Amino acid sequence: MDERSALGMLADAVGAAGDDAAVVDGLVVTTDMLHERTDFPPGTTRYTAGWRAVGASLSDVAAMGADATAAVAAYGAPTFDADEVRAFVDGANDVCDLTGARYVGGDLDSHDEFTVASTVVGRTDDPVPRSGASPGEAVYVTGTLGRTGAAIRAFERGDDEQGNALFRFEPRVDAGQALAPVATAMMDSSDGLARSLHQLAEASDCGFDISWDRLPVDSSVEDVATDAADRRELAAFFGEDFELVFTAPPSALESVDLSTPVTRIGDVTAAGVVADGDSLPDRGYTH
Amino acid sequence: MDERSALGMLADAVGAAGDDAAVVDGLVVTTDMLHERTDFPPGTTRYTAGWRAVGASLSDVAAMGADATAAVAAYGAPTFDADEVRAFVDGANDVCDLTGARYVGGDLDSHDEFTVASTVVGRTDDPVPRSGASPGEAVYVTGTLGRTGAAIRAFERGDDEQGNALFRFEPRVDAGQALAPVATAMMDSSDGLARSLHQLAEASDCGFDISWDRLPVDSSVEDVATDAADRRELAAFFGEDFELVFTAPPSALESVDLSTPVTRIGDVTAAGVVADGDSLPDRGYTH
Repeated sequence: MDERSALGMLADAVGAAGDDAAVVDGLVVTTDMLHERTDFPPGTTRYTAGWRAVGASLSDVAAMGADATAAVAAYGAPTFDADEVRAFVDGANDVCDLTGARYVGGDLDSHDEFTVASTVVGRTDDPVPRSGASPGEAVYVTGTLGRTGAAIRAFERGDDEQGNALFRFEPRVDAGQALAPVATAMMDSSDGLARSLHQLAEASDCGFDISWDRLPVDSSVEDVATDAADRRELAAFFGEDFELVFTAPPSALESVDLSTPVTRIGDVTAAGVVADGDSLPDRGYTH
Repeated sequence: MDERSALGMLADAVGAAGDDAAVVDGLVVTTDMLHERTDFPPGTTRYTAGWRAVGASLSDVAAMGADATAAVAAYGAPTFDADEVRAFVDGANDVCDLTGARYVGGDLDSHDEFTVASTVVGRTDDPVPRSGASPGEAVYVTGTLGRTGAAIRAFERGDDEQGNALFRFEPRVDAGQALAPVATAMMDSSDGLARSLHQLAEASDCGFDISWDRLPVDSSVEDVATDAADRRELAAFFGEDFELVFTAPPSALESVDLSTPVTRIGDVTAAGVVADGDSLPDRGYTH
């Protein structure tokens, strides 16, 4: 059984789970386990790892339209170097500071492979589901797409400074809360834009029609993409960008005070996920 | 740097951390990472692993005198066998059911070694610290001591059924809440009774005088202990029993309605941790 199938089985077994985070009694709880081999390429600093691990969980809370209250992280490593642990904590603290959450510590575990499990707790009385999109609405994405793909390319060519910089994303907690009153469906783009659209389409029983030209492709992608196909690959399929993908009535955003850039990338339709008229494959990052 | 030193450094770096769980805005959050090599001996079922991992975090919440609201767990393993994942979820669900918490899912991660990171969120407006014990009070422990040591012996001799049964402890969430109004200091015994007493003594700037004969040694220990010294080793030093160790004025427990057995094992003194007049070593389980 692959992870996606197993996660589906887990969701069936656990009623309150599903969407980006679980909600129980007004609390939003989400957890993510990341490890060196697949999540932290050579060159990733412990500061960036702390930022990114906790940021991934903050992004899940953001996707529910919730505030972020507290974060913890369990840190598993073969050795506990004081500078490394401190750098990790600094990164976790700094990403929390961007969102209003408090980083309140965690656990250490002696572990062969560097492994981090982060958990964030938030609050909302009115979580935004994945299932509320309707034909006639518009579909939007926050920020830019493709930073993580560009980061991997930077690490591969030995530019660790740019790799780390691109890896440290800003979780969209403020935007998620601002959008919650008007967003009809929302999730984060951690599996990539294409897969996110398919997941929203399935949950909402709708379709999407987007335009390639509208995607807010990050400037770092323009620098490294070898051609137009590669550019699309990095922006729509690579995943792990942790932007919000959401739907809303076309004029609804006029009433929202947002400090985060938001781009309308297309429309909600009755069925089918297409880009410029062609079917958009349901593939992306498999966690 | 060993884990204990690193945890101390972490606690210094993160203001809200410390004690058994962090408290922020009335929320109690705790996380624990466990893995096969040190926490799940051969013979441990996935059902027991789910129970025990989530139970360890529930115990931390219990030690704060808080209720337990929600639990999540990240499950890392080389493969995702449907029966194993389901058994793990069943164990996590069942231990939550004992405490009123809801198990609301988690994350799956492809991982060379079976690894679990569990997080529990609870609520309290008045957490019980480790620092409130005063000379003249009594010191107590819930339940019995030594089950985990006896479980390891059972696994070693191939009696997996008894090992698993002893490994599935009942987190003392109900007792922790009932005791919260009268307990002056409290923690769980996951590092072993001896180390727990030293930690309470340090936090409260007090001492303890306990009697070996008063310890509520589990009947499973009586079955496997080779002599009196071994019996003390399993009951007071082995650790991972997840009982509550707490202090209270001697008559205060009369007003508490408890379904959990509680044993008075000695008294709070001005300084020094002694058992029957001899210094009690500060050693135990190092996570």
